[in-house]
Amino acid sequence: MSVLIVGSTALDSIKTPKAENPRLLGGSASHAAVAASFFSPVKMIGVVGEDFPKKYLQLYRRHKIDLAGLQILPGKTFHWSGEYEANMNNRRTLLTELGVFETFTPTLPKPYQATPFVLLANIAPSLQHHVLDQMARPKFVVADTMDLWLNIALTDLLKLIKRLDGFVLNDSEAQQLTKEDNVFAALKKIHTLGPKYVIIKQGSHGSILSGPRGFFLCPAYPLPKVVDPTGAGDSFVGGMMGYLASARGSIDDNLRRAMIHGSVVASFCCEGFGLNRTAKLKRTQIEQRVRELETLTKF
Amino acid sequence: MSVLIVGSTALDSIKTPKAENPRLLGGSASHAAVAASFFSPVKMIGVVGEDFPKKYLQLYRRHKIDLAGLQILPGKTFHWSGEYEANMNNRRTLLTELGVFETFTPTLPKPYQATPFVLLANIAPSLQHHVLDQMARPKFVVADTMDLWLNIALTDLLKLIKRLDGFVLNDSEAQQLTKEDNVFAALKKIHTLGPKYVIIKQGSHGSILSGPRGFFLCPAYPLPKVVDPTGAGDSFVGGMMGYLASARGSIDDNLRRAMIHGSVVASFCCEGFGLNRTAKLKRTQIEQRVRELETLTKF
Repeated sequence: MSVLIVGSTALDSIKTPKAENPRLLGGSASHAAVAASFFSPVKMIGVVGEDFPKKYLQLYRRHKIDLAGLQILPGKTFHWSGEYEANMNNRRTLLTELGVFETFTPTLPKPYQATPFVLLANIAPSLQHHVLDQMARPKFVVADTMDLWLNIALTDLLKLIKRLDGFVLNDSEAQQLTKEDNVFAALKKIHTLGPKYVIIKQGSHGSILSGPRGFFLCPAYPLPKVVDPTGAGDSFVGGMMGYLASARGSIDDNLRRAMIHGSVVASFCCEGFGLNRTAKLKRTQIEQRVRELETLTKF
Repeated sequence: MSVLIVGSTALDSIKTPKAENPRLLGGSASHAAVAASFFSPVKMIGVVGEDFPKKYLQLYRRHKIDLAGLQILPGKTFHWSGEYEANMNNRRTLLTELGVFETFTPTLPKPYQATPFVLLANIAPSLQHHVLDQMARPKFVVADTMDLWLNIALTDLLKLIKRLDGFVLNDSEAQQLTKEDNVFAALKKIHTLGPKYVIIKQGSHGSILSGPRGFFLCPAYPLPKVVDPTGAGDSFVGGMMGYLASARGSIDDNLRRAMIHGSVVASFCCEGFGLNRTAKLKRTQIEQRVRELETLTKF
């Protein structure tokens, strides 16, 4: 089955203590769509400006991503610039130029509307709502978010959460949303907001699922060197949704392995700037790390 | 087989945002010895003052801990007082009264000297050396440490690390020791200091083993509420050594399950002040959580 993915499509200029990389392909939808593409057909919704490099369109196409929902508008592509500290965990935004993103209205091409799996990757909750409004009874809807929307669009976000099957956020966002320092207490509180499945991402510590079958402690793949963590969370949720859409059986039967596959794609994402490493990835390399994670967690 | 454990034996006065508990039984040796006692016979080395409550001696005895190496000297028992912040991760020391600990020289009773498993729980590296000097060819020696010794006794500690089979420390100590922000890079560097097995503790995120069979990602048991994390790290390493001493087969065959058992005992430790919860623990309750951890990590 296929996955519809909406989110940001951006150019990222990323600075780390070791290197500086201007105008890489970035954005939550780009990372999530490429990650999902290793498992299932992907339909992308997004917007870019006329300055968007052709090579990045080609990159999407190489991953067989359906671009019927990608608007190319007069103006500039959304541009984000950020700098990481030495520990690669803390980053600060240097610059945000919204460009054509400022007036983006995601409109679904007709063939998108019946897509069974929907990933509302990180973007304004109002736009996530707008996409859902155009869908015809999807099978499984998951949204990701970020602290910005907790700060400036909390009402919209809370309404969105009620409409979801699964909600994904990171540990500091979960703390901000629930005022709970304990991640398991936070998971419990988030269920009361609506979703059957809640996943809290913990960066290099992996992620935790809470669902009808209880908790699942999903490990992160061990990386002795992180080149650039930008997009790892989007890759995780994209890979997870792509795997889910590809798997037979129930969501409950498949979600754990889906998270593991997402976690593995995220690990590759961290090994290059932007999408540099992910874009070269082969399915066999993903499966190799999935097997390694089995060994790494067996006792 | 039995485990020899040296470390601090103390009275802990612990304040959390919810409660205040004066003069609990504490210290690295107390926590580690009780944790190990669920699996194997324990021989403890430590020192207390004449003010040490009889009920705490009885607590040790109930766990069949051999106290031939526990000195009871004129003066006061080591007293530590600390306060936790709301998130239960950060704590600050309010008071440290060394008492009889100031001049402690751990002397091994003759029957202790051939103990096959040795746990040098957190205490000054010079005392850890002194205990090792008195041992007759132990089978497996592990030491734990804390940031204090990295700050004031690094030379002693580095000499000690060379003498160990296994070295255990937490993530911030590993960062301080190796100047590596990445935990897997830090593990690699610590091996070059001597030990075959290195374990980095990550609090509620579990722990990571690096050894001849590669990494093992050891989970922490999910706790929706942490009452008092004091002694959790000592319980982890104590439970691990107790399990190892009880298990047939090689260290490599048993170390992962030993860590899991240590992790489970540590989870119970966090559910009560001081040793309150751990002291009431039954082996069947430990095995129940071990089985739950199997379910929680299966994919």
